[in-house]
Amino acid sequence: MYYIGIDLGGTNIAVGVVNEEGKIICKKSIPTLAHRTPEEIVKDMASVSMEVVKEAGLSMDDITSLGAACPCFVEKKLGVLIAGANLPFRGYDIRKELHKYIDKPIYLDNDANCAAWAEAVAGAAKGTKDSIMITLGTGVGGGIVVNGSLYSGFNCFGGELGHMVIEIDGRQCGCGRKGCWEAYASATALIKMTREYAENNKNSLMWELAEKEGKFSGRTAFDAAKQGDETAQKVVDKYIKYLTCGVANLITIFQPEVLVIGGGVSNEGEYLLEPLRKAALKEKYDGTDSPLFEDGRIEKALLGNDAGIIGAALLKE
Amino acid sequence: MYYIGIDLGGTNIAVGVVNEEGKIICKKSIPTLAHRTPEEIVKDMASVSMEVVKEAGLSMDDITSLGAACPCFVEKKLGVLIAGANLPFRGYDIRKELHKYIDKPIYLDNDANCAAWAEAVAGAAKGTKDSIMITLGTGVGGGIVVNGSLYSGFNCFGGELGHMVIEIDGRQCGCGRKGCWEAYASATALIKMTREYAENNKNSLMWELAEKEGKFSGRTAFDAAKQGDETAQKVVDKYIKYLTCGVANLITIFQPEVLVIGGGVSNEGEYLLEPLRKAALKEKYDGTDSPLFEDGRIEKALLGNDAGIIGAALLKE
Repeated sequence: MYYIGIDLGGTNIAVGVVNEEGKIICKKSIPTLAHRTPEEIVKDMASVSMEVVKEAGLSMDDITSLGAACPCFVEKKLGVLIAGANLPFRGYDIRKELHKYIDKPIYLDNDANCAAWAEAVAGAAKGTKDSIMITLGTGVGGGIVVNGSLYSGFNCFGGELGHMVIEIDGRQCGCGRKGCWEAYASATALIKMTREYAENNKNSLMWELAEKEGKFSGRTAFDAAKQGDETAQKVVDKYIKYLTCGVANLITIFQPEVLVIGGGVSNEGEYLLEPLRKAALKEKYDGTDSPLFEDGRIEKALLGNDAGIIGAALLKE
Repeated sequence: MYYIGIDLGGTNIAVGVVNEEGKIICKKSIPTLAHRTPEEIVKDMASVSMEVVKEAGLSMDDITSLGAACPCFVEKKLGVLIAGANLPFRGYDIRKELHKYIDKPIYLDNDANCAAWAEAVAGAAKGTKDSIMITLGTGVGGGIVVNGSLYSGFNCFGGELGHMVIEIDGRQCGCGRKGCWEAYASATALIKMTREYAENNKNSLMWELAEKEGKFSGRTAFDAAKQGDETAQKVVDKYIKYLTCGVANLITIFQPEVLVIGGGVSNEGEYLLEPLRKAALKEKYDGTDSPLFEDGRIEKALLGNDAGIIGAALLKE
């Protein structure tokens, strides 16, 4: 059995054919050209899907279902995209439109949920029933897998883990709340903090690295800290402290077998994960030193940019 | 079919026979006498269970299973009580001991989880699949019901919702973390805040009410505020603000169909719930004003002190 997974982005539409093990056997990407009408975009989603199936040496008869990961709120039961920041869909019945071209069961979810599902089925949390994934990028995305199923609440809009407040009356978040975890632990927040600390120390190595790269990035502080820059180390320590707070909250709430960390910042690997693990497992609530208390694991995401396609492809009812 | 539910407390052991609808048809309570050995306590749990069955006019043949709600960490798969603050159980195989007297399937969980399960099956969240319960008492207890099942993570220790940090580096919590929701939204925290505000205004009506009652309680500020006391209103407003922060976090994460509020403070009823609803549903993340976005409900717990017995009785594998 094979499945079509579509990762619909503001920039590209990436489509893959995925097998039962969650491996992509063929994929293709085209520009979204998001200024177009929803109908034009959906038509492209469908035609690339059919092309990829053909390129994989398969026919549509080999395809069980199609799934799409969308960068917006998704009413997955109705098959409707609610609102997309960079896409023209708003209260749009994308399932109905896709069905004009492809007569297969069509499943939808938002991209963060699809990534969490991909990691649970075929990635860092493979073989577990309860996992959480967070994505440290422009924002902090989240996905929840419980008892072997993707969970997003009765109205499909749960799992917005980045918008958990960790500092009441804290930093203004784009969502309207103050003190959201995203305002501290996203790559955006890290870059902002990097710039602030650099402004206060013109001798920091961070200036040199930023100049080389042409900008302050999510890597600037980490790279400078690795070379012994004290100001950069302060940025890294503070960032990890904020990250830890939310991670410890999620462990306290969910006790997942694996908490998967993805997104750009996760590329720091063990340099980020090792102190995070130590701090989060110390900080999370357990209230017992019993040897029966088994801690879950904190792991780096394994599927990278393919997670959207894979997770979408493997979506179920 | 009938079920035995035991609510094991530091003060009393309450036992009930519960029918399939989650109604208690007969119940009985005896002192725990927690200074005794685990074996003596378990023997009482079993003998009262058998008495209650008899008093209900039933025999043990009518009983499907027995469940116990325990005020401690419970390794429910192993049937072991990990640690009980006011009870002598520590790494104790209570299921094995109970099986010496009662040859039925025996299920265990902590009391907050049992209360959440009771409300989901037979209380304020009846008829829903996804609900959350929080209990505002000495601490802030929590229970999570997802897809119609009680959820507590892969190691059984999840759902500790009161120990989600809402103010990084905030108030010291008994658990060791700083800034836990429990340190702001428990009845204990409310009483502490009441006392602090009263200290700063010797003319507050709260002094008179506290004198009448013999102490500052969780009701003092609410009662004085209802009578127009401005200082008391400030306490109430601040308490509700903290409560809202955590409730909005939980809605953002879980989007439960019902979020149930129990525990002593919940007895303020609509005086508490109405402003909480308004604030939490405004504050929770949705990022869309779509008419397809359906909000869950925030409701007062319905089962009161019976929730432990009912939830325990209806526990399943």
